[in-house]
Amino acid sequence: MTGAGELMAREIAEQPAVFDRILEHGRADIGKVAAQVTAAGIRFVVLAARGTSDHAALYAKYLVEIVLGLPAGLASPSTMTAYGARPDLRDVLFVAVSQSGGSPDLVESLTTAGQCGALTLAVTNAPASALATAARLHIDVLAGPEVAVAATKSYTAELLSLYLLVDALRGGDGSQARSIVEAARVLVSDTEQVAAVARRFEGVERLVVTGRGYSYPTAREAALKLMETSYMSAQAFSGADLLHGPMAMLRRDSAVIAIAADGVGGTAMQPVLNRLAELETSLAIVGSGSRDSATQKAALRLPVGLPEELSPLAEIIPLQMLARELAVVRGFDPDAPRGLLKVTKTW
Amino acid sequence: MTGAGELMAREIAEQPAVFDRILEHGRADIGKVAAQVTAAGIRFVVLAARGTSDHAALYAKYLVEIVLGLPAGLASPSTMTAYGARPDLRDVLFVAVSQSGGSPDLVESLTTAGQCGALTLAVTNAPASALATAARLHIDVLAGPEVAVAATKSYTAELLSLYLLVDALRGGDGSQARSIVEAARVLVSDTEQVAAVARRFEGVERLVVTGRGYSYPTAREAALKLMETSYMSAQAFSGADLLHGPMAMLRRDSAVIAIAADGVGGTAMQPVLNRLAELETSLAIVGSGSRDSATQKAALRLPVGLPEELSPLAEIIPLQMLARELAVVRGFDPDAPRGLLKVTKTW
Repeated sequence: MTGAGELMAREIAEQPAVFDRILEHGRADIGKVAAQVTAAGIRFVVLAARGTSDHAALYAKYLVEIVLGLPAGLASPSTMTAYGARPDLRDVLFVAVSQSGGSPDLVESLTTAGQCGALTLAVTNAPASALATAARLHIDVLAGPEVAVAATKSYTAELLSLYLLVDALRGGDGSQARSIVEAARVLVSDTEQVAAVARRFEGVERLVVTGRGYSYPTAREAALKLMETSYMSAQAFSGADLLHGPMAMLRRDSAVIAIAADGVGGTAMQPVLNRLAELETSLAIVGSGSRDSATQKAALRLPVGLPEELSPLAEIIPLQMLARELAVVRGFDPDAPRGLLKVTKTW
Repeated sequence: MTGAGELMAREIAEQPAVFDRILEHGRADIGKVAAQVTAAGIRFVVLAARGTSDHAALYAKYLVEIVLGLPAGLASPSTMTAYGARPDLRDVLFVAVSQSGGSPDLVESLTTAGQCGALTLAVTNAPASALATAARLHIDVLAGPEVAVAATKSYTAELLSLYLLVDALRGGDGSQARSIVEAARVLVSDTEQVAAVARRFEGVERLVVTGRGYSYPTAREAALKLMETSYMSAQAFSGADLLHGPMAMLRRDSAVIAIAADGVGGTAMQPVLNRLAELETSLAIVGSGSRDSATQKAALRLPVGLPEELSPLAEIIPLQMLARELAVVRGFDPDAPRGLLKVTKTW
């Protein structure tokens, strides 16, 4: 028998070791995949995923557009599976991201994409899976068996693997990523700041998570994690979209988590933080506190000095811990969420 | 002085006339734009928008992928504006969708996309706007002045204009779309079914809207409309993603709106409807009731026989009416939502 949320806690705590493993043992294989992608002369990238992995795909979309200067899009898998679309995918890299590699609709989308001319790449935590087998290229994210229903270490393993792929494609050697191991170690051991926010947010029913740029996928993933484990109504908005309407929904019993890591995305969050400060809504900022008066007040402190491209690998960790902690203080077992299976078989 | 929600009601009711105007007076210009797109030899479509127009862009993404067989992606505007990305956009059609044509970040994204080699197209309700002026090609959606803060007729005008563009690109003459005028007329006059659902959902605080395929943009737009006007916590999920975690969040005080129009998307919703039927959550189905036992129970009835591609133009109408009605019964004025401006100036 394990205590409530113990499985999830254990896998959250493994993340520094997973990062280290990928950097030690995964980097060479990722470099080989990058060489094959380079040789293929890719012009567009299409990413396909569901759930947590969809947020890793979104992170990769930002990297591809900003770092590689290639247009990228997230696939709507149903266009190929349900509607039978057969798009012209010459010069396209089609990347499917999935922890289990077992979702039938992703396997079908990737197989169809290959038939339509795309170079196919599966990024999974399961090298023997149907998805890995169906793809021309495969990256094993080396997270090790993930037992908790709420994905944590597989998510950040996907992020680091996708980062290293893009870094290799620009000619980098991944060395910048070494700092993430120590950053993750600091974060997983800082339980006190997480517990403080959990106490403050315990009675909140309506939570908004917001971030911009590279931190927007973090906002999406944090909202999903909070919904899955503590059954809050958690919604993610990019800082820009938040001002377009959903701001109206915030009330006194709402709370906002704003991610403002060092860099362009965090700087662009400043007007959102200013606006939020005028409301009566309870606010927790995820940031390093290195930059300005607003993030000085960060409730979930990030290590200073992380490159912005790598920041999503760090900033999700206290939010995973918060989702677990909130579930426990609200009387739920995050290891046994209602109505959830580890692999969703989408028809 | 006007009564609560009167402006919004008036613009909802104008939609049949707007459809008719686009089909009578807009179609020829859209055909000319299509001819220029065809001549350019496009291989990839990138769509950029915010808020309500982002849902019109998502609808266009489905059309482009399914009908035209071209890969398509939604732009993350911040990659070009905040991060300074300069992607290689040769052979790309870059489409910016905006009611006002006034969002500075969209103008900047579109201008940059043009400099990066894309053919640029603005779809706006404002032919003299900065966005329309900056673009190589422009489609005027002819919705007429939109005064209510919650966009309604400009949304469906964008949908029909984008449909006619894609239809012209496949060589169609838009004649299939004639049926939408009468369908919209039936829907705007059927206030009783909307009032019945509003009474049932009056006390609901947590609402999930779900749909698949072409109906997924409708789910997103309906959730935004409900948030903007009645301050519910409304979230949209594709039927497939709903099973990946958020299902756990549904409780007895939640409600679900499931869009199951005739066609592939509605058929693919069947397993979701079956699963939802097992829960204690209150459920309203948007559908024609023509197909199966589940949609027989549709609470918001759609006209029978609409082609699935055009269904989003109809299915949003009762949901716009519901958002307005719920706001009023909950004591809010949907014409004066808290903290919202018509044009959001994103930095």
